[in-house]
Amino acid sequence: MTDNFKNWTLTNTRTGVWLDAFHVNAADVGLAGNWSVKKATLRAGPSDGIDILDVDNGALRFSVLPTRGMGLWRGEYRGMRLGWQPPLSGPVHPKFVNADAHGGIGWLAGFDEWMCRCGLAWNGPPGDDGGAKLTLHGRIANLPASHVAVGVQTNSPHTIAVQGVTHEGGLFLANLRLTTHYYTEPGAHWVQIHDTVENLSSRPAELQMLYHCNWGPPCPVLEEGSKVLAPFRTVAPLTPRAAEGIDTFDVYGPPTPGFAEQVYACQMLEDSQGWTLALVQNPAADKGAVVYWRPRELPCFTIWKNTAAVEDGYVTGLEPATNFPNFKGFERQQGRVIVLPPGGSWECTWGIEVYDTAEGVATVHKRIADIEHTGTRVVNRVPTAGFCPV
Amino acid sequence: MTDNFKNWTLTNTRTGVWLDAFHVNAADVGLAGNWSVKKATLRAGPSDGIDILDVDNGALRFSVLPTRGMGLWRGEYRGMRLGWQPPLSGPVHPKFVNADAHGGIGWLAGFDEWMCRCGLAWNGPPGDDGGAKLTLHGRIANLPASHVAVGVQTNSPHTIAVQGVTHEGGLFLANLRLTTHYYTEPGAHWVQIHDTVENLSSRPAELQMLYHCNWGPPCPVLEEGSKVLAPFRTVAPLTPRAAEGIDTFDVYGPPTPGFAEQVYACQMLEDSQGWTLALVQNPAADKGAVVYWRPRELPCFTIWKNTAAVEDGYVTGLEPATNFPNFKGFERQQGRVIVLPPGGSWECTWGIEVYDTAEGVATVHKRIADIEHTGTRVVNRVPTAGFCPV
Amino acid sequence: MTDNFKNWTLTNTRTGVWLDAFHVNAADVGLAGNWSVKKATLRAGPSDGIDILDVDNGALRFSVLPTRGMGLWRGEYRGMRLGWQPPLSGPVHPKFVNADAHGGIGWLAGFDEWMCRCGLAWNGPPGDDGGAKLTLHGRIANLPASHVAVGVQTNSPHTIAVQGVTHEGGLFLANLRLTTHYYTEPGAHWVQIHDTVENLSSRPAELQMLYHCNWGPPCPVLEEGSKVLAPFRTVAPLTPRAAEGIDTFDVYGPPTPGFAEQVYACQMLEDSQGWTLALVQNPAADKGAVVYWRPRELPCFTIWKNTAAVEDGYVTGLEPATNFPNFKGFERQQGRVIVLPPGGSWECTWGIEVYDTAEGVATVHKRIADIEHTGTRVVNRVPTAGFCPV
Repeated sequence: MTDNFKNWTLTNTRTGVWLDAFHVNAADVGLAGNWSVKKATLRAGPSDGIDILDVDNGALRFSVLPTRGMGLWRGEYRGMRLGWQPPLSGPVHPKFVNADAHGGIGWLAGFDEWMCRCGLAWNGPPGDDGGAKLTLHGRIANLPASHVAVGVQTNSPHTIAVQGVTHEGGLFLANLRLTTHYYTEPGAHWVQIHDTVENLSSRPAELQMLYHCNWGPPCPVLEEGSKVLAPFRTVAPLTPRAAEGIDTFDVYGPPTPGFAEQVYACQMLEDSQGWTLALVQNPAADKGAVVYWRPRELPCFTIWKNTAAVEDGYVTGLEPATNFPNFKGFERQQGRVIVLPPGGSWECTWGIEVYDTAEGVATVHKRIADIEHTGTRVVNRVPTAGFCPV
Repeated sequence: MTDNFKNWTLTNTRTGVWLDAFHVNAADVGLAGNWSVKKATLRAGPSDGIDILDVDNGALRFSVLPTRGMGLWRGEYRGMRLGWQPPLSGPVHPKFVNADAHGGIGWLAGFDEWMCRCGLAWNGPPGDDGGAKLTLHGRIANLPASHVAVGVQTNSPHTIAVQGVTHEGGLFLANLRLTTHYYTEPGAHWVQIHDTVENLSSRPAELQMLYHCNWGPPCPVLEEGSKVLAPFRTVAPLTPRAAEGIDTFDVYGPPTPGFAEQVYACQMLEDSQGWTLALVQNPAADKGAVVYWRPRELPCFTIWKNTAAVEDGYVTGLEPATNFPNFKGFERQQGRVIVLPPGGSWECTWGIEVYDTAEGVATVHKRIADIEHTGTRVVNRVPTAGFCPV
Repeated sequence: MTDNFKNWTLTNTRTGVWLDAFHVNAADVGLAGNWSVKKATLRAGPSDGIDILDVDNGALRFSVLPTRGMGLWRGEYRGMRLGWQPPLSGPVHPKFVNADAHGGIGWLAGFDEWMCRCGLAWNGPPGDDGGAKLTLHGRIANLPASHVAVGVQTNSPHTIAVQGVTHEGGLFLANLRLTTHYYTEPGAHWVQIHDTVENLSSRPAELQMLYHCNWGPPCPVLEEGSKVLAPFRTVAPLTPRAAEGIDTFDVYGPPTPGFAEQVYACQMLEDSQGWTLALVQNPAADKGAVVYWRPRELPCFTIWKNTAAVEDGYVTGLEPATNFPNFKGFERQQGRVIVLPPGGSWECTWGIEVYDTAEGVATVHKRIADIEHTGTRVVNRVPTAGFCPV
């Protein structure tokens, strides 16, 4: 973080820094406003040992989990809850997660975040990738950050920043370093994310990154009649099950016991600056959440509809990514696995916005419409070559 | 816990409550007697991070392990040790247990309790259950409780209660919540257990529960010539190996290096109130331990004879359960896997009693005899259809 | 530790002793010299929860990791770094290591030590050993010690000792207890290790032990042109890949991106007292490290050449062991798996020396030469029966 930031190091495993608790607010640094950043260590139960960092910009609050690869756990915007409620008691410390369990889907026993990363060496379903045993959605969400810092910009706009470094390594394994930054400003309705993944190896390394952003009760943007709006260029169901719902791929049904998930692979139109976005809004169109990104960095967008019963995790995922969530071998064939050269790096800027008024949601409609008229939308009605194995 | 209880919350992960240490005794609450409840956190070695709760009613002491699914670790009754000594240094924190290890029997690396639960979604041996990879005896013994409370009844009989809630969950996995209560009274020779398992899902959920109660040195009820007495209705060896010992299924041999375990599946007669019991007593019949339960709730009783050398874990298990410890697929075929409806629950009351006098043991003989004359005992000499795959 | 030692217990899980931090130095006990022993608990990141014990004899410093089976993490001798740098952020707590991951090579995600033990029930590559699923290099490096003590000899030579006890156990699993002692003296350039492994079972137990001693940057003994010198009796490449480099098996190339490891199995000549040694020295022959041992206790010596790029873990392993690092089944056929009788034990004394002058290295050359002229060296040019499957 640069010169006009005041910075605090909360964790640095090399120098032995770790703060069990930490708190700073605007007054502490002689600034106006009611923002604060606070860090605690959770104890007991499945969360025992988790570092949790609560950033409150005065309007938007979000919790970062350094112990779970810097994922975003939960949030709240002016009283509106953000995230979802899976059928577990989280957040779950990685020591209670065994990725290999249940035939390679043990990751699900810790999957609890508003936003978690799937990667870095791979994501997607488990399987045998030429001798390498891949588990669901990779290692990064269950790896602890070894460096965590907080910064506040002393001059306007008083950006609040959280930085974390997580290493996905091991001899003969990947050697990838993720450096994450979260940025927000006092009173803002958004958090912006900047990630860099470096290949620390002397050899080319594969990278897959999917940002699993999840919305469900108690977050009010998802209910029966909620919609996802976005400047889609192409939509394709990933499975026959998803094809069944293609006519309503962008509309959400009510919580439905036993609902089997439907997944749609999408490519997006973008604005002249290369940005695109997706909005999930409630039926009244007065509450919504936006994910925005650049298709140049994240060319693949996945909509995950899992409108099961509330108690089973009624949820939708809006997932900008480097790839679609097919098995890595298939994605590699499609050219959708990034290969980082030795010492090379990949980076990405994207963000989340939250709206709690009809006026706010309407501004998003306008932004989507402005992009939509730059192209046409193709909706494939069946699983389609290139998007998934057919 | 109801109105006339004084209660303390030791752990509540939702509200961030966790007590590193806790202590209360009779004097602290203005009562007579020398009971106490104390909580500590174990550090270092395989036990690092384990919460342990010692309940001492003045005569009977037992340790509850919230970190291991509310299992009972060890006990002592007027100087008589309760439990057993497996060949490991426990109790073992779940972070050192990998259930998938050794081909799915990694659970054994943490198996150390006087009484532990096997379940909730399954128990029994590892294997492939229609695509689901089951590991030995399920997840519950390696899941930490997220809520722990202690209560003391301020009026007579001054019941001492421990409550714990453990969640076996995960998206697309089971969503079962176990609420455990342990009850004892000042000076009592017993601990009573009340468990409720709720299916929090909108869909039917399978449940298997086996209470693995283990007795071996330094507990004096098991030695050469010890016996198990109970009002058996039917006894069947689970394997050819068990059939070899059918003539002495209820008598224990000496510690025997290399002894291969023998397991017997039993159905029980019950008293007019629906209760049954099993006693393991020493040859002098002046020390004994009883497990009592209702076959309506726990229709299957298993005797586990593992009279290996003391250093290899000379032990017997008395195991009331919803099922026999065969692979879940077989038990399902026999109708012995409980299916809980959405939101449904299962509950069970049972207990353990300890005796250290001949007179005490004789009273148990009388109770058993009173039930035995209500029916007849059938002992199958070979593995028998319905009890195990034949 | 005997009478003229002053001792401190840092960990004893049976009695509930655990010191979060500990420090003692010469002055504290009224002795001259500038040695010290200090214990800390690491927090956050992959190291969270690790106990680390730093022994500084005034010239040589080394870190012992009780939480990782008493391995030696890093060292330093008069400013010369000891150890290596694998592509991970260690040391790694076992709770973040899943041995079964990646098809049984998950051990690599924690492999970070200057010296770690591979064993105890098995070492070598993963595989199915008659139904038992073995994972790479066994359990011991990811098991925490349950007893740790430090002692200082109050009379000359004021030996500094560290003792640790680690139990590799579990019902129906191995029941082996490792008691480790590290010894050094004020100002010494060496650390001596004494290990005892006891079979606590009533039944015979298999034992494999390999001491994985690793040297690489920032330790200056390994660079292009470094050599391994030793009184070899027989050398055999373990694989065709190793055979490719047989002409230079004892010379190290530069860091080479993509270098595939080469492994050589060696038998050693020994001196009249039964000792042998191996030296890895830099090209200038003014820095070197020695491993010394007795082939009677450790008959197999393995050279691991992994001269990959520095960022991928440029490293060599000098590995005295009870066996070669082939799959356990093959080693058993060759009679190289130790069988301990009930209650039996195995013990071993060996050590590491460090040199930072040409004179020092020359004294090692002399010791090697003195042993070499007692026999002849046979170098097999291809994988050879008896050393590896052919």
